[in-house]
Amino acid sequence: MTSIDLNCDMGESFGSYRIGADDAVMPHITSANIACGWHAGDPSVMDRTVRMAVEQGVKAGAHPGYPDLMGFGRRFMDLSFDELCNGIVYQVGALRGFCLAHGTDISHVKPHGALYNNAMVNETVARGIAEGVARIDAGIPVFVLAGAKGRNMARTCRENGLRVVLEAFPDRAYTPEGNLAPRSMEGAVKTDPSEIADRALMMAEEQRVVDTDGNTIEIEAETLCLHGDTPEAAILVRSIRSTLEASGIIVKAV
Amino acid sequence: MTSIDLNCDMGESFGSYRIGADDAVMPHITSANIACGWHAGDPSVMDRTVRMAVEQGVKAGAHPGYPDLMGFGRRFMDLSFDELCNGIVYQVGALRGFCLAHGTDISHVKPHGALYNNAMVNETVARGIAEGVARIDAGIPVFVLAGAKGRNMARTCRENGLRVVLEAFPDRAYTPEGNLAPRSMEGAVKTDPSEIADRALMMAEEQRVVDTDGNTIEIEAETLCLHGDTPEAAILVRSIRSTLEASGIIVKAV
Amino acid sequence: MTSIDLNCDMGESFGSYRIGADDAVMPHITSANIACGWHAGDPSVMDRTVRMAVEQGVKAGAHPGYPDLMGFGRRFMDLSFDELCNGIVYQVGALRGFCLAHGTDISHVKPHGALYNNAMVNETVARGIAEGVARIDAGIPVFVLAGAKGRNMARTCRENGLRVVLEAFPDRAYTPEGNLAPRSMEGAVKTDPSEIADRALMMAEEQRVVDTDGNTIEIEAETLCLHGDTPEAAILVRSIRSTLEASGIIVKAV
Amino acid sequence: MTSIDLNCDMGESFGSYRIGADDAVMPHITSANIACGWHAGDPSVMDRTVRMAVEQGVKAGAHPGYPDLMGFGRRFMDLSFDELCNGIVYQVGALRGFCLAHGTDISHVKPHGALYNNAMVNETVARGIAEGVARIDAGIPVFVLAGAKGRNMARTCRENGLRVVLEAFPDRAYTPEGNLAPRSMEGAVKTDPSEIADRALMMAEEQRVVDTDGNTIEIEAETLCLHGDTPEAAILVRSIRSTLEASGIIVKAV
Repeated sequence: MTSIDLNCDMGESFGSYRIGADDAVMPHITSANIACGWHAGDPSVMDRTVRMAVEQGVKAGAHPGYPDLMGFGRRFMDLSFDELCNGIVYQVGALRGFCLAHGTDISHVKPHGALYNNAMVNETVARGIAEGVARIDAGIPVFVLAGAKGRNMARTCRENGLRVVLEAFPDRAYTPEGNLAPRSMEGAVKTDPSEIADRALMMAEEQRVVDTDGNTIEIEAETLCLHGDTPEAAILVRSIRSTLEASGIIVKAV
Repeated sequence: MTSIDLNCDMGESFGSYRIGADDAVMPHITSANIACGWHAGDPSVMDRTVRMAVEQGVKAGAHPGYPDLMGFGRRFMDLSFDELCNGIVYQVGALRGFCLAHGTDISHVKPHGALYNNAMVNETVARGIAEGVARIDAGIPVFVLAGAKGRNMARTCRENGLRVVLEAFPDRAYTPEGNLAPRSMEGAVKTDPSEIADRALMMAEEQRVVDTDGNTIEIEAETLCLHGDTPEAAILVRSIRSTLEASGIIVKAV
Repeated sequence: MTSIDLNCDMGESFGSYRIGADDAVMPHITSANIACGWHAGDPSVMDRTVRMAVEQGVKAGAHPGYPDLMGFGRRFMDLSFDELCNGIVYQVGALRGFCLAHGTDISHVKPHGALYNNAMVNETVARGIAEGVARIDAGIPVFVLAGAKGRNMARTCRENGLRVVLEAFPDRAYTPEGNLAPRSMEGAVKTDPSEIADRALMMAEEQRVVDTDGNTIEIEAETLCLHGDTPEAAILVRSIRSTLEASGIIVKAV
Repeated sequence: MTSIDLNCDMGESFGSYRIGADDAVMPHITSANIACGWHAGDPSVMDRTVRMAVEQGVKAGAHPGYPDLMGFGRRFMDLSFDELCNGIVYQVGALRGFCLAHGTDISHVKPHGALYNNAMVNETVARGIAEGVARIDAGIPVFVLAGAKGRNMARTCRENGLRVVLEAFPDRAYTPEGNLAPRSMEGAVKTDPSEIADRALMMAEEQRVVDTDGNTIEIEAETLCLHGDTPEAAILVRSIRSTLEASGIIVKAV
């Protein structure tokens, strides 16, 4: 039987600041990407989020980013290989502390924001992330963008002995080359719930997606990334999961 | 045979900023208290320091502090129990990442600066630290001030199932009650190398120290804290170790 | 004719994080206490908030706090006099930059959170704030808690040549001694809009308030502090202002 | 008579961390570029540095950088125009607070590290800096790299109504195009004191420099940047100044 993982960024609140509808979204996903205190998150948020994940049977993954809370990790920073690698060890290690405290372990690593985007196009960033994860524990899988653009990062991870989990974005448009359409392009971000659910289903069932030319192209993915910023997003996540399960897809972590 | 541990704060540099003569001091100590990025240290410094410790057979301990780089962790911050506890899990977890990367594990936890001092007098701080360490791994010992003032912290740690390692300060004066004389008192900090070495030897050999009244009092300690800020300090550390070993004391980690 | 100032904390968002219903509240107040980037706020938020204040004829004041974004400035930090004083110069200077950029100047300084609370009870904190403001410009008034507890801070400010503007809290209960009832006391924080409006009116009109014993006591205040965290708060602020103006009170900055 | 300004980065210490031989260097320069708390510096360091500058008749300029203490402002960060512009207003405003506290005003702005370097090649960065300075006070001059590479930044500053002060580096090699030779090139950084002094003299006297081909090219500069990181650097600065003054050059701020 076909199965798929549903992942979502979690634990992005900080101090008195709240981002994300974690309570509402967590019950419907299978993998949580938990911020590690650099681009978002703080120790108390991390503790709460890991506990919530464990309570709900959701896998707790690390979501490391650039050391830039003001920019929410969305601004490229020109870090050296050593800085990248050690920054990964630091953040993943910190999250692992909370996992141990709650009787679990880290299930995966997914880089955040500008770190994720640059890992796909910048060899130093890709190697820094891969080697950082490998140093702390080569048994931890890394989430990598499915499609052409993620190929180098996937290879770099595998060269470091890491398992790669390819991920696709059901609410994003794909070019004929199998890359994410730039957000500046009209229609790059889907908002219609049933369209998103249909795309998620095609991704899970057929490993395919309809591209911006209207053709169906291959997109091999083991996990689908959903967004959980708003209460509405929680409803969307739940409905995507229902659509998948109603079609016989098993929704579970990799 | 009698043995004693020699510990020193290490890895307190940050970015382009250098503090400590780590290279010169490391070969002469047996336990390194390594800063975890809050009051001092950054991921690259942590990596370098853990590697150096491992290479020289020195135990790598975590040295967590308040989230206050500007104040170097020396300013009291009124954190809640949860904030303390989670702050410990975060910092110890992060350091453990580097330990795993270098094939070792955390040997101990020693709180830094204002966090250490307040742990001895503030029950919430003591509990926050103890429970934080216990949550991540109850097998990690905690360094606690030897003498009257450390008794509550020691009890709190033991109540959390933690092993306590008492530590004494050969370069600090002790009151008749067995507490550190306040730094404001004349002669509170010893600077004469041979006096410090003699005090270290009496501490290791007899578990005793000469107090500010000139009487010899009991001070039970398994580890001695030395200071390594300057190149001169490195010479002092080496000479203390020589004095101890020349008297047949085995200098080794607990 | 009687007049009163209405002040509210503004500009407490940070990066991607939003706190406060600034857009909704700003039109109804006369003095904005604008965060300066330490406990909250960032340069872009400061710029936006000062611009909004200027556009709506609201006075732009500085709202400096402890350097503790994670704790939102609500955790006491044991800073030295020099650190306090220079921290004020830094934050007030930074906000002044934005005021100059928008053709205005700083109207007042109101310390935030734990800094405000400690200024009322800790002489070092009081002096650090007062001297910091005096160094940058002794013409900038300081907001100080009306009632017994604010007397020392008020005197310290005046000794530094500063004008003191006393402030009262219409949504907070007052003890017979004229101090704020601790938040832990039942009924310490009023939530009924018409009660709060009535208390604001009595404060503005009679310089009096009903205390926790039901007696009417004197409370001398030139400005009333309102809360603007939620859209509901904006409605409350508007209704308080309406109540005051309907009774012939002139609502304007000091 | 010919005159030249000598500038040096100052106030780059932070908390317990020390960088720079400010005490030794300050007496010999005419313009101090003072860090503003983002890439280096803290409020107490800023206060001390401005006071020292005023006491010694040295001009106090702002030295703003990226918000990246861990990277000492040497790592490019992809900030938006608004973030750049507001970051300049924030930092320059903060330093101005200390200037006012010491009875002076900001003499100039010189961006730091990666911000400076990128201003010369990236139009958004150039405009962000220029408009930030102009917003706070268009009367503040900006230091810009002399030679071909600084031309765009110079023009951008002038378009914003700012005075440009061109600066040259006597200890750096110049290409035939009048640009700084990359540090990776052999001989890119001069270390021989008398060679550096000779180059400084030729720059001040003739507005010329010997390039990497051995030809003498034009390099129009009103200020020379010297380095003050070490006690030896202080000796170098003093000797450069002596060489200039012995040749009848007036060493003074612009």
